Amino acid sequence: MEQIALRTVKAPKLNGALPGVYLIGAGPGASDLITVRGSRILAQADIVFFDALIDISMLEWCPSTRLVQVGKRCGSHSSSQHFINKQLVDAAGKYSVVVRLKGGDPMIFGRAQEEIDALEKANVRYEIVPGITTALAASAELKQPPTTRELSRTLTLTTLPGRCAHEDHKTAIYYMARDQLSEVATTLIAQGYTVDTPVCLMESVSLPTQRSFACTLDELRFGDVHHHFLDKQPVVVMVGEVYRKKLHTLIPLIESQNHFNVFQAAS
Amino acid sequence: MEQIALRTVKAPKLNGALPGVYLIGAGPGASDLITVRGSRILAQADIVFFDALIDISMLEWCPSTRLVQVGKRCGSHSSSQHFINKQLVDAAGKYSVVVRLKGGDPMIFGRAQEEIDALEKANVRYEIVPGITTALAASAELKQPPTTRELSRTLTLTTLPGRCAHEDHKTAIYYMARDQLSEVATTLIAQGYTVDTPVCLMESVSLPTQRSFACTLDELRFGDVHHHFLDKQPVVVMVGEVYRKKLHTLIPLIESQNHFNVFQAAS
Repeated sequence: MEQIALRTVKAPKLNGALPGVYLIGAGPGASDLITVRGSRILAQADIVFFDALIDISMLEWCPSTRLVQVGKRCGSHSSSQHFINKQLVDAAGKYSVVVRLKGGDPMIFGRAQEEIDALEKANVRYEIVPGITTALAASAELKQPPTTRELSRTLTLTTLPGRCAHEDHKTAIYYMARDQLSEVATTLIAQGYTVDTPVCLMESVSLPTQRSFACTLDELRFGDVHHHFLDKQPVVVMVGEVYRKKLHTLIPLIESQNHFNVFQAAS
Repeated sequence: MEQIALRTVKAPKLNGALPGVYLIGAGPGASDLITVRGSRILAQADIVFFDALIDISMLEWCPSTRLVQVGKRCGSHSSSQHFINKQLVDAAGKYSVVVRLKGGDPMIFGRAQEEIDALEKANVRYEIVPGITTALAASAELKQPPTTRELSRTLTLTTLPGRCAHEDHKTAIYYMARDQLSEVATTLIAQGYTVDTPVCLMESVSLPTQRSFACTLDELRFGDVHHHFLDKQPVVVMVGEVYRKKLHTLIPLIESQNHFNVFQAAS
C-alpha cells in the first residue's frame, strides 16, 4: 500500500476533435455511460447519424447539432447499411466533425466493418471510440461478473444460438436473441448444459425501464416467453453457473408473464 | 431517415453520488476512455483505491482525493485480495464516497466477485460502473471488429490458453497471456486452427506507449517473443481470420525483436 502525492495529479485536458468521421459507441443506453471521449466529440460534432436504438437522452450531448436517425429498429423503418455508408462518406465531404453514434460498442455486432470499408475506400479520415457493450453493462447492473475464478474463466459473446458448446459450461451471453430464446436453450441443452443451468435476461439495460428476470435453461426452452418482452426493446441473455444465486433474487421469468402482460397493456 | 427537432434535447444532468462503495472500470488506460459516470463519481470520491496497472493520468479526475494504490503488478509489490476487501469495508465506515478503481471493466477478469462478496457480507451499499474492456479498446485502435458477418459471429474472451476450440475458428481474445504466448498458439493449432491463422498483439492499449504487432499462430508458437515485451505492460492477444489484413499492415512480431530490444534498453 502506497500513497501518491497530490501534486502529481492535474486537471484533465480537453482535446479538440480533428476533422473526420467518428464511429462512437454510445454504450448500453444511459447517457452517462458513454465515454468522456465520446461525449466530448459529440459536443463538437457538426452532424450525428444515430441508430434508432439509441436512447434519446444520449443526444443531450449534442443539443445544437444536426441529427439524423438511421439504422434498424425491429420491424419498423430502417435505412439499408449501404445507404448509411453513403451518408457517412457524403457527410465527410460537407462537414468537419461527423459522428456515427452506435449502440453499445461499435465493434461488437455493430456492422462497423461495412462502414470502415466504405470510409477507407473513400479515403476518409476516421476514428473509432469504444463504448460499453451491453453484456458488461448488464453484468454491472446484475452485480454478477460473467467470469469468476471458480466457475468460469471464459466468456463467449455471440448472436448465434448454435454456439458456445463447452464441456466446462462456461458463461455465454447472447445478443439479439429475444426471438430465439427457445432455440438458444434447446441448443445449449443438446450440447451438454444441464437443464437447470441458470439464465438471466435483462431488457433495456441501464435505462429507467430496465427489467431483469431469471429462469433455468429448461424453463427458457418451454416457457414460450419471447413475445412477452416489450416491443422494440433489446434483451440480453446470460447463461451459466455464475448466475445460480440470481434464480433466488430476480423475478422468475415464467411466473412473471402476467407482469409482462400488464406492461404490454400499459405500453 | 428522419430529423429530430432540436428542442427535444436538453443539457445533460449531473447526478450526485450516494454514499457507498463504487467499483469503477477505468477502461484500458487513456483517461478519457472512462465513462462520464465513472469520471463524475471519481470527482466526488473521498478516497480512491486504485490498481497498480491504472495509468496515473486517470487520477486527474480526482486531484484532491486521498489515493491508495493496491493490487498486483507483474512481479512487484501487491496487496492480497483479502486485504483489499478489508480496506474497502473499513473505508466504507469512515468515508462517504469510496471508489475502487479497476483497470478495464471491473467484471471481466477483475476479481470483482471477491470484493462484491465482502461488501455484501458487511452489508455495505455498493454500485458497479462498467468500463471499456481492453479487448474492445484494442479492437477500436486496430480498427478491426473482432466479429464480422462473414468470418466470425462469436467472440470469446479468456485468460486460459486451453480454451476457444471451435470448428469455425471464430475470434478469440486472450487477457493476461503475455507469458503464455507459445502455449496459446500450440493449443489453438492442436485444436484445429491453421498454422497461418493471423494473430495481433497490442501492448499498453490506448496509452501513448501503445504498440501493435502481427504474426501467424506458427510464428507465435516458435517465436519465443514474450520476453521482448516491455516490463509490467499488459498485452492483449487477438486470434482469428478477421485479422488477416493486419498481417500486411502491422509491424511483424518476429522481425520486430530488435525493435523490442531497443525499447527495452531505452526503458
